[in-house]
Amino acid sequence: MNTSLIKPQTLKGFRDHLPEQMLAREQLIDIARSVYRSYGFVPIDTPALEYSEILLGKGGAESDRQLFRFCDQGGRDVALRFDLTVPLARFAAQHLSDIGTPFKRYHIGTVWRGERPQKGRYREFMQCDFDTIGSESNAADIETLLVIHDLIEALGFERFTIRINNRLVLNGLLEKSGLTAQSNGILRALDKLPKIGAEAVIREMTESVGATSAQAHDILQLGSLEGSPDEKLSQLEALLAGNPRGLEGLERLGELFSVCRAAGVPDDRLELDVSIARGLDYYTGTVYETFLDDLPGIGSVCSGGRYDNLAELFTKQRLPGVGASLGLDRLLAAMRELNMIRLEQTAAHVLITVFDRNHLGDYLRVARQLRAAQIPTEVYPDQKAIGKQLKYADRRGFAVALIAGSDEFAAGTWQVKFLRDRQAEQQTVTEDSLVELIRSRRQPIAPPPA
Amino acid sequence: MNTSLIKPQTLKGFRDHLPEQMLAREQLIDIARSVYRSYGFVPIDTPALEYSEILLGKGGAESDRQLFRFCDQGGRDVALRFDLTVPLARFAAQHLSDIGTPFKRYHIGTVWRGERPQKGRYREFMQCDFDTIGSESNAADIETLLVIHDLIEALGFERFTIRINNRLVLNGLLEKSGLTAQSNGILRALDKLPKIGAEAVIREMTESVGATSAQAHDILQLGSLEGSPDEKLSQLEALLAGNPRGLEGLERLGELFSVCRAAGVPDDRLELDVSIARGLDYYTGTVYETFLDDLPGIGSVCSGGRYDNLAELFTKQRLPGVGASLGLDRLLAAMRELNMIRLEQTAAHVLITVFDRNHLGDYLRVARQLRAAQIPTEVYPDQKAIGKQLKYADRRGFAVALIAGSDEFAAGTWQVKFLRDRQAEQQTVTEDSLVELIRSRRQPIAPPPA
Repeated sequence: MNTSLIKPQTLKGFRDHLPEQMLAREQLIDIARSVYRSYGFVPIDTPALEYSEILLGKGGAESDRQLFRFCDQGGRDVALRFDLTVPLARFAAQHLSDIGTPFKRYHIGTVWRGERPQKGRYREFMQCDFDTIGSESNAADIETLLVIHDLIEALGFERFTIRINNRLVLNGLLEKSGLTAQSNGILRALDKLPKIGAEAVIREMTESVGATSAQAHDILQLGSLEGSPDEKLSQLEALLAGNPRGLEGLERLGELFSVCRAAGVPDDRLELDVSIARGLDYYTGTVYETFLDDLPGIGSVCSGGRYDNLAELFTKQRLPGVGASLGLDRLLAAMRELNMIRLEQTAAHVLITVFDRNHLGDYLRVARQLRAAQIPTEVYPDQKAIGKQLKYADRRGFAVALIAGSDEFAAGTWQVKFLRDRQAEQQTVTEDSLVELIRSRRQPIAPPPA
Repeated sequence: MNTSLIKPQTLKGFRDHLPEQMLAREQLIDIARSVYRSYGFVPIDTPALEYSEILLGKGGAESDRQLFRFCDQGGRDVALRFDLTVPLARFAAQHLSDIGTPFKRYHIGTVWRGERPQKGRYREFMQCDFDTIGSESNAADIETLLVIHDLIEALGFERFTIRINNRLVLNGLLEKSGLTAQSNGILRALDKLPKIGAEAVIREMTESVGATSAQAHDILQLGSLEGSPDEKLSQLEALLAGNPRGLEGLERLGELFSVCRAAGVPDDRLELDVSIARGLDYYTGTVYETFLDDLPGIGSVCSGGRYDNLAELFTKQRLPGVGASLGLDRLLAAMRELNMIRLEQTAAHVLITVFDRNHLGDYLRVARQLRAAQIPTEVYPDQKAIGKQLKYADRRGFAVALIAGSDEFAAGTWQVKFLRDRQAEQQTVTEDSLVELIRSRRQPIAPPPA
């Protein structure tokens, strides 16, 4: 009937997730979710498809080009969401009178961007965001930092640094230096400081943005502060004297560092970096970036900040908020590189082989007993040679194989093979003691987070 | 800047998921996932977007109309997946040489169908499938049934019935009655038996499908079998005598019932219903439907079956398999109707109020201590009147509110309010005994499944 086959392939920039990747991803998501929940954040979800008008908002030609946009069956101009922030803004405007503020939500979902695919960049990927909406309090900014900290720690990292800034400090300094009108260009140049160095940044500020050399040097002082956060804050206080906006930023930063210390965050994981701007238009207060000390080159794995007005396109109600986004794929890649996750082919622990098909009921019965004892157990479906079944068990990475035939069933016993221990002999045990034996040899697994 | 607002709205047939719905949905998904994993099924994911050619396959005009289909930026003819089965077929053809068989996967993902929206039907919904590919063994059919059984039980249902049939029995009977050529029409009529009754089915078979009255009555005998599965099987054996195909179906069904009994499944949850056909072309062996005894009207909540060749459009390799799909939204609706889930506004247990902003570090420190003791704890972000903060706690459904000001911090104590117990007085306890007190009053939560 089928003369020609259809070639099985995914679209350019899209990919399948095989079990070993999915098991690792699910583990990461579980940890993120439980940390978010432990702080009182609750999940929401929004449609993958929205009216294009909603997603485009003020966005210019660039986001337009990235959009998977089309006309649906009803002639509506629709598109796939390209982030979880715009849908949150729409959601908040639509539902917040029911839900009330403060509203703390997490959202773990897929987004789509028609960017040119490149190594590690896909047109479909997952975002993992959390935000507190409807509060201007610095307590929410501080909590955001605690969530980032506890999250990265819960994922198993010990050496990481959260870099923090407050956009008010930057804006205050621009104001004092008379550069407010050129602020976008100045900040864009400043963001390149780690990559291109001070001289190139000054050149860009003076030649392209139109700052004087003195102004550019003023701004560049931000990159050369030294000492502890408190020491940097004192130096900034001198630079910003008389500028209320900048001083407010300093005050919030000062409280953030002292409260985090009081709450038990190790000092060496926090760094005040007044040169980070993170996005030119969006953030208006605290900004966060998180770097792994052992893999700084992969960039920030969790970033975010405070914004003044989330949903201004959709409602007159002002909605300030603060939040951050976990870079799931980047973290997974890092954890693999640092050997922090063992890629598994199965989440089950035991394979029960089928030696004698007439005893299928017994194999399935014992499998259910093991499952009831929290031991995930697979039963091989076919009656193939035991060697083949054990090879399957090895390839999939099962820890234990169980074998029983008529002799064993007559005696009420099982043969137990510990597959990860080549030295171990096969053991014969009674059915009653199976659970205990398997448990006693089970490698301890990290306890689930709160 | 924004003179006109954009109306915040979702597309027709699409919906937002608010926290109370998402918390319930996440709970359901967690349970499904842990049951699937306990049987050795592993997760995969595939792109939301595929080449239209792949999704359309043999599908005719109907599935075409349901497809969200468009041209992407690169001029490719693409569409959103409308189920998880076609992507599995494409995935299997593409990766199975790496992964090997038997391959047992679960896939929990969103699918899109441009159907006319109606009550309880959406254009975007979640599917929750599991399949065993690459085995023809009846052991896989039996395991599929065990998974369905354990899943529905793990979700908290006690009264449910899994109806089972084998398409070979139907096909055998059609063969014996000389109705093979008309089988699609006959089965379509037979599927209506519970809805329209025997007379109307016979009328349809004779008037529209072209069966003789005797043939129609032959087939209708399937609907009037009585007794236990074993008794029904004996009656069928007489009907199918001499038809190898039908007898093979009976043999597989016989083994299924006896092995399930041996494996510990209660008899009264399984029913042999030889009238169910479930889809005309796709299934070729065992078929399953699951009904809640207390809400049979909502239809099957978990359905599936065996198929001969999953990926014939994409590969010459024959891939038999068996699997089923959990009706997530239908189950959630049922659980709400049966009062089996309490809708929660928060996953946190404790709200720490902010009475004195100067102690923010202490509030956050104690919150982290509670979290470390597995007690999810939120800190109110603003310093509002305590009455307002407690109102927030009530509205969100926190169980406990903690209050402390300068006096308490001087004495090393906390005020504890149990919000779900109006009679309970506010208690004063030392900081050291907070965890113990809150734990002792925490309502037991159902233990997580295996």
